[in-house]
Amino acid sequence: MKRAIVAMGGGPTRVINRSLFGVVDEAAKNGIEVLAARHGIAGVLKEHFIPVTPGTAPVATHKDLPGASIGSTRHKPNADDCRKAFEIFKKHEVSYFFYIGGNDTAEATSIINREAKSAGYELRCFHVPKTIDNDLVENDHCPGYGSAARYVANALLGDDLDVRSLPGIKMNVIMGRNAGWLAAAASLCRASEEDGPQLIYFPERPKSLAHFLADVLAVYAKHGRAEVAVSEGLCGPDKSDFISSNFIRAELAKPPFTPILRTLEAQAAIEDATGGAKKDLFGHTQLSGTGALADVLAAAVKIATYTQLGKAARCRADTFGYLQRCYAGDVSPVDAKEAEMVGRKAVKYAMGKRHASGSVVLRADRSGKYRAFAELVALEAVGGKVRLLPDDFINEKGNGVTPAFVAYARTLTGPLAR
Amino acid sequence: MKRAIVAMGGGPTRVINRSLFGVVDEAAKNGIEVLAARHGIAGVLKEHFIPVTPGTAPVATHKDLPGASIGSTRHKPNADDCRKAFEIFKKHEVSYFFYIGGNDTAEATSIINREAKSAGYELRCFHVPKTIDNDLVENDHCPGYGSAARYVANALLGDDLDVRSLPGIKMNVIMGRNAGWLAAAASLCRASEEDGPQLIYFPERPKSLAHFLADVLAVYAKHGRAEVAVSEGLCGPDKSDFISSNFIRAELAKPPFTPILRTLEAQAAIEDATGGAKKDLFGHTQLSGTGALADVLAAAVKIATYTQLGKAARCRADTFGYLQRCYAGDVSPVDAKEAEMVGRKAVKYAMGKRHASGSVVLRADRSGKYRAFAELVALEAVGGKVRLLPDDFINEKGNGVTPAFVAYARTLTGPLAR
Repeated sequence: MKRAIVAMGGGPTRVINRSLFGVVDEAAKNGIEVLAARHGIAGVLKEHFIPVTPGTAPVATHKDLPGASIGSTRHKPNADDCRKAFEIFKKHEVSYFFYIGGNDTAEATSIINREAKSAGYELRCFHVPKTIDNDLVENDHCPGYGSAARYVANALLGDDLDVRSLPGIKMNVIMGRNAGWLAAAASLCRASEEDGPQLIYFPERPKSLAHFLADVLAVYAKHGRAEVAVSEGLCGPDKSDFISSNFIRAELAKPPFTPILRTLEAQAAIEDATGGAKKDLFGHTQLSGTGALADVLAAAVKIATYTQLGKAARCRADTFGYLQRCYAGDVSPVDAKEAEMVGRKAVKYAMGKRHASGSVVLRADRSGKYRAFAELVALEAVGGKVRLLPDDFINEKGNGVTPAFVAYARTLTGPLAR
Repeated sequence: MKRAIVAMGGGPTRVINRSLFGVVDEAAKNGIEVLAARHGIAGVLKEHFIPVTPGTAPVATHKDLPGASIGSTRHKPNADDCRKAFEIFKKHEVSYFFYIGGNDTAEATSIINREAKSAGYELRCFHVPKTIDNDLVENDHCPGYGSAARYVANALLGDDLDVRSLPGIKMNVIMGRNAGWLAAAASLCRASEEDGPQLIYFPERPKSLAHFLADVLAVYAKHGRAEVAVSEGLCGPDKSDFISSNFIRAELAKPPFTPILRTLEAQAAIEDATGGAKKDLFGHTQLSGTGALADVLAAAVKIATYTQLGKAARCRADTFGYLQRCYAGDVSPVDAKEAEMVGRKAVKYAMGKRHASGSVVLRADRSGKYRAFAELVALEAVGGKVRLLPDDFINEKGNGVTPAFVAYARTLTGPLAR
């Protein structure tokens, strides 16, 4: 009997457990025994495995639930880790390694594959795609994105109707790291120019605070309200993270915005009191799980309306946070189906002779009725790279999407509330 | 032909438009012509009316969407406003006034009713209940709560699964003003003691920062992770709003928490730069639309783990924000049905002879199969009062719910994701 390890890396999605089900069910059909590594490569190194089958917990019980049911990790394996992993793999007679995750996980899979080759350990490694950020190169779109986009679209529809009820300025900060795909989904329920969000900001289009405020106040003047979506990865004109950008800090150093800068400076002392802001092994800093960007933007807008219009506008800001990837009450049926499909495909490729290892990628044919299909590419082609929102999906002013984006994304979310 | 005004007040809910539909459809059946006042009593004073029928926009088009489709207001009418309103009502031959809203709206309806009597203007005034806070006295529960509770329950289920994936400490700040009903709904998908949220904090049970941190660190020590739900209305031991409480400020004034106090002090300057923190006419300060409470709790937990355990825990905090009342992708079917029912009932009471005016209240019979029904009580019995979470729904430690609460709330949400 052949044995496989399946593992998960990076942030979970609404449908990552469907990919797990796909791998485990397809493996069972092919007579492959599967061990799940708890918390990805970190679990491998601790020899923390659980045997999994399609009909038992956690595969069967969590198939339709969010979260990484076998645990995830942000650990990046080095050569020493790999040597240790291969000893453990040898002991368990492991011939296949399936790693479900995003760019970092693709990179980790690539490292493990390369080290296995150089160590002469016979292992076929497969990366199974997953990320709400939708930023894996070579993929038309990524499993997990459709459900997150659905959440964001339904959220902005509701939030815009809420802002019309009690008019004011509302900002929503949306996940996506350094790519604007998820923020772009804020547009998907817009039916007219009246509808919010009237403004969407992307990491791909750096903005100054002055430019941002001018946009927001213009929409407010025109409609008596403004609904704004902002990617958490928004940059200042110097292309660094908005609230830590020197350019933005310089804008905040001038009246009437100085109180905001003071707040940011005071917050830095909190970081110092906890050992300082940390980057993970893949080099990423934390962007989610804090309301800082939303609160800075809300304060700036409030101050700007007060100083320019004589009265502070009703101004609110929400940071959508982790629910974008884990809200249990809703899922894109297309996304769920495709997540399972890429899991199955990985096993099929593993059974095939042609490819030693690789990254399963999701392609789509939109020439007729939308159809998605999987292909296999080299691990190095995907790992560690970021696919940004392309120019033809962003409007000329860099503060909204094009109809081409809407047509693309609407195929991925399933039917929306409007 | 008799004529009625329908209006909405306060924060919208997921199902407030179903109550509008109920009023308008039932009125049509009874030959009553209905004008909708845009933005509640504020629209009445501007004579801003739109004729509404069950089959046309916005009643038909927004029936199943969130937001107050005819606009809402937080304006509290005074005697002058009422005099002006009655002149306008006279001109339009208005005999009935239906006002859909929460405690403040019930109070506004009561004021209008009293002033109409003293002015000798023949008007029958009906308050139709609505609030995600679930805090209207005389009601078993309030339309809008079931859907918001459903959102919070499905959110915490997903978020707990997310935290198990990448273990750490996660806090979620939940709406509800000064009542803990919505925070309590965080418990509804818990199946075992292992499941999060292991801790829930209510306005009804004031806490010190030290007490809060001791709870969180104990759960973290036991489970290696902690999922925490906190009501936005949480109080310090002096029973005032948590982050502005003098008791909490005194705790933050001591090392290692002083950087947090500095941040709060710096933020106060932002308020000053926008004309100062304002209260609305009903005397409420803004609790939602800022990440302040979540960020303070996250910073405190991070600092506490760093100083007590030698390493800052992975610690995140989300403020759920407005999506709790307006997320378009999900709704409680029970809630939607009951929201329509109370709207219809208001019209039926208006057609009846027995009561001049009143507040429609929602009762429930749980002796057999759950059954909800409406009754009419005096406007003064509901207006401006707050129904807190009762003692038998809160556990002994004041950091979780009882099985009695779960049994109660599960009847209101419809089937959840688990």
